Amino acid sequence: MRKLEVCFTPALLPLYDIRDSIVVIIDIFRASSSICYGIDNGAEGIIPVATVEECLQYGGSDFLLAAEREGKVVEGFDFGNSPFSYTIEKVKGKQIVLTTTNGTQALHQSLQADKIVIGSFLNKTALCDYLQGQQKSVLLLCAGWKGMFNLEDTLFAGAVVNCLREDIQNVDDAGIAAEELYLMAKDDLRDFLRKSSHSIRLEKLNIEEDICFCLQTDICTSVPILENGRLRKMTPTTISRVRRGS
Amino acid sequence: MRKLEVCFTPALLPLYDIRDSIVVIIDIFRASSSICYGIDNGAEGIIPVATVEECLQYGGSDFLLAAEREGKVVEGFDFGNSPFSYTIEKVKGKQIVLTTTNGTQALHQSLQADKIVIGSFLNKTALCDYLQGQQKSVLLLCAGWKGMFNLEDTLFAGAVVNCLREDIQNVDDAGIAAEELYLMAKDDLRDFLRKSSHSIRLEKLNIEEDICFCLQTDICTSVPILENGRLRKMTPTTISRVRRGS
Repeated sequence: MRKLEVCFTPALLPLYDIRDSIVVIIDIFRASSSICYGIDNGAEGIIPVATVEECLQYGGSDFLLAAEREGKVVEGFDFGNSPFSYTIEKVKGKQIVLTTTNGTQALHQSLQADKIVIGSFLNKTALCDYLQGQQKSVLLLCAGWKGMFNLEDTLFAGAVVNCLREDIQNVDDAGIAAEELYLMAKDDLRDFLRKSSHSIRLEKLNIEEDICFCLQTDICTSVPILENGRLRKMTPTTISRVRRGS
Repeated sequence: MRKLEVCFTPALLPLYDIRDSIVVIIDIFRASSSICYGIDNGAEGIIPVATVEECLQYGGSDFLLAAEREGKVVEGFDFGNSPFSYTIEKVKGKQIVLTTTNGTQALHQSLQADKIVIGSFLNKTALCDYLQGQQKSVLLLCAGWKGMFNLEDTLFAGAVVNCLREDIQNVDDAGIAAEELYLMAKDDLRDFLRKSSHSIRLEKLNIEEDICFCLQTDICTSVPILENGRLRKMTPTTISRVRRGS
């Protein structure tokens, strides 16, 4: 039976059998939001790598190198994971190599999944349309913060559960909890998140504009999907073709 | 600074530094509820052991042997973890050796904590009174289900967060989420839990009476505490003495 599960942190991923599932990587502040925005803005591809060292191996002018650790751009890199670094002007036609504290780590731990896609509030409807059209189980993988649960990733997982409810009845306890939290918070996500310890940590980084940007819904119409180690655009056309099963 | 954290499953416990904290073991259906009820009913002590084999080593008439796996009493044992096996008639003055699928495992993973106590809706106020009187950080450890998140343990953790809010401001994201879920569910816990996958699993075990029993609040006035490998009663007198710091 088709399942819809939420894994609150990559530290729990070994408990799930994802071999036949679509895994959605969620790292709202800010990796998955920036990836969605960058791909939607025409980045040719985003290559997620686990370490700063791997990132550095992609030298030369062919690649933009992006590295974030502890919420900051790693010294010497073009940029980190602020969505404002992923505008059309900066990324159109470019290849980006990206490593982040939580998001890209979560992705690398999911490599045995049937498919890996990237989700954020920015591409919520495109993502849900795609997932609805697939006859696969879905695991929503929250990147969390250093292995721990965080609220913002959970709220987005809850938003997706809420969208997919009619298609998939078999939802785990984590999915139920995430959906309830989302329903409670959805009218003012920013306000709800002010309570969160992670938000406080992020506020110290002085990225309020990034936070508000990442909480916008549906400013992107595409879904990044991992193919041959590279995230590329799956367009609405591709998505609806998949839905029709053609 | 004093912290109040919620760990959703023992699989995440290695991420927390508990050496200077009080860990509260929570396994609402049913180990922690039954332990609270048994201790309150005068059980001399409850010895939690990790495996069925260890349990069997306590032979002879001196001990009641209790073993639960997959929600059922293990064949050949006196009883499992139904609270109805922990009445005064059955347990007063007795030593019980207990092993369960999730609860006793969580306890054994917490042995480096400063103190380990047991929490359930049955002793909620006694537990919160005790925790308020201590100047320690608190980790609420949900036993979950085979390493995964479950709703009922989370709701109780949320109830405790809600009680301790004024004493401890430093609450992690998991604690915030648990409290929000509790506030949403508290008027009818049983109804809220009907949505839960774990409840469906428990319904199959035909333990509806146990479930309703375990959702009662404050029918016990004591807190079980681990001392020298044995859970024993910490009475309200002890608790208030601790609060006064005498």
